[in-house]
Amino acid sequence: MTEAQALHEEAILIDGLNICNWDREIFEEYRKGGVTAVSCTAAVWENFRDGMLEVSKWLNWYEEHSDIIMPVHSTADILEAKKQNKTGIILNWQNTSPLEDRLQFVPLFKKLGVGVMQLTYNTQNYAGSGYLESNDSGLSDWGKELIDAMGEWGVLCDLSHVGDKTSADVVAYSKKPVAFTHVLPRGLLDKPRNKSDELMQAVAGTGGIVGFSLFAPGMKNGNDSTIDDVVEAICYMVDLLGEDHVTVGTDFSLKHPRPGPFLEWCNMDKGDARWLTQFGSKPVNKPKGIERIKEFPNLTEALLKVGFSHERIKKIYGENWLRVLRQVWEGEK
Amino acid sequence: MTEAQALHEEAILIDGLNICNWDREIFEEYRKGGVTAVSCTAAVWENFRDGMLEVSKWLNWYEEHSDIIMPVHSTADILEAKKQNKTGIILNWQNTSPLEDRLQFVPLFKKLGVGVMQLTYNTQNYAGSGYLESNDSGLSDWGKELIDAMGEWGVLCDLSHVGDKTSADVVAYSKKPVAFTHVLPRGLLDKPRNKSDELMQAVAGTGGIVGFSLFAPGMKNGNDSTIDDVVEAICYMVDLLGEDHVTVGTDFSLKHPRPGPFLEWCNMDKGDARWLTQFGSKPVNKPKGIERIKEFPNLTEALLKVGFSHERIKKIYGENWLRVLRQVWEGEK
Repeated sequence: MTEAQALHEEAILIDGLNICNWDREIFEEYRKGGVTAVSCTAAVWENFRDGMLEVSKWLNWYEEHSDIIMPVHSTADILEAKKQNKTGIILNWQNTSPLEDRLQFVPLFKKLGVGVMQLTYNTQNYAGSGYLESNDSGLSDWGKELIDAMGEWGVLCDLSHVGDKTSADVVAYSKKPVAFTHVLPRGLLDKPRNKSDELMQAVAGTGGIVGFSLFAPGMKNGNDSTIDDVVEAICYMVDLLGEDHVTVGTDFSLKHPRPGPFLEWCNMDKGDARWLTQFGSKPVNKPKGIERIKEFPNLTEALLKVGFSHERIKKIYGENWLRVLRQVWEGEK
Repeated sequence: MTEAQALHEEAILIDGLNICNWDREIFEEYRKGGVTAVSCTAAVWENFRDGMLEVSKWLNWYEEHSDIIMPVHSTADILEAKKQNKTGIILNWQNTSPLEDRLQFVPLFKKLGVGVMQLTYNTQNYAGSGYLESNDSGLSDWGKELIDAMGEWGVLCDLSHVGDKTSADVVAYSKKPVAFTHVLPRGLLDKPRNKSDELMQAVAGTGGIVGFSLFAPGMKNGNDSTIDDVVEAICYMVDLLGEDHVTVGTDFSLKHPRPGPFLEWCNMDKGDARWLTQFGSKPVNKPKGIERIKEFPNLTEALLKVGFSHERIKKIYGENWLRVLRQVWEGEK
């Protein structure tokens, strides 16, 4: 067993965002990739009822595939998943649309396993604006009440697809650490979806985390990017934020065809209004060398090669996530 | 019969906004007040399902009280109501919340009689901001699609409770006349809910209408206001906008107790979040002399007394509304 293999096996690896068309084969791939826990998107544009149906899908999968996956409601569950050689499932939302107009639905979904909620997805909702809205309204007054409710019930606020102004408002308003779960640095490629140094530092400044994604169009070599571009992004983020604030958030979207109905739905406002981007219908690669979940060990090797210590890699892979979840979910100071 | 009584009986009187706790007694009062047609609020914070239930309430009332009220789907229906000595019912929304996230619901509600939709009620929604939001986002990108859909299907856009910036954006964007159905001039009393000269002129500039309300806290004498304050507001608006753009929009809220659950619900964000105003729980009078619908003829007398011509009064009472509805509902140029 190589040094990289041994480290990979030992580390707790938390993938902070996946949006796959899940089935047993993908759950098996989590095991091959050494993924201890993964945050799975359970809402993009869903309303309350459809958001509940997404949760119920997972409740069935937990039963059906209980030999390899298990639900995560606490950081203890993540450690337990590691021990049992299973992959723990955190549910995340990329939009607060399933709340519709009710703050009272926050604890309800939290109890059902939704531990991470992105405030907005691409456009304006009741709480604020997405990064593709022409005018970013900032955090609305109801949005402030929502941040309070999430803080009270222990839900981590994700800002990855949120507008810059709304994100800055949330950072200023939130009493809890917040996250960019799946982003890339604007300092390496100036795209609206990538994040400025300033905003990444602000998120880290809440005690939060910034996860690098594997979204090749956000890297300077676009769809020709390789694992070297990923390492470059990670190094950039560690230099900027320090090793305590960088995490993994691959944005794997396995088994969703492009073009295909699901990703097209994601890329229209509210799933059926105007087109927001063409990412649903044109090819979007993952970087060569880490195109699949099972290739995760390649990244461990690449990070060792650029001189990252075991300790640093373990922080980036899982310990930083655990720290933030202890604070946000469990009230640890 | 006095001159005022004869004119009142002859004129088409369209009250551009009521939000009562309706029953037969109120429908009878419309007849006593000589109200040809009235626009009745059928949504404030409702979601899709509850918005549909509000419509179904009216479908039942149309049957039950068909001797004195009738539904209005066209300007011809308003003329028919006049002929039959009935009061025609236009349904309006004070919020686009019943659309939830679906532009396709616009034609559906339009066919059921909702001919006027206020874009936002007090706070931010998917389309824009209300006048009580700390930061007015302006008209959102989805809001533009919504204005297009309303234009296409023939729904008049009301801006009374909408934020100033969002209102200005709608005026600039809309290809159809728009309305302030129930407002008072900020030039007479500087309150956020009252409208600036500039914005009232902009709405009139679309070919639209600006309706005076009887909301006493928006007048300089507050709850002690009388019909003289109402006449002062009307004169101010006619001087500013010309007699072709001023209409009636009383905001009568008969039989809703204050304090009471309905008006409290109206005055919390989305019906159950933070308090937005205290108008649900403190007394709000209508001006002395026109405290009830049946006192409408007093206004006719007061307007004649300040020298308004019959022609001008008939425009303000109904013809301006008819012109705008012909344009927005029926595509007249």
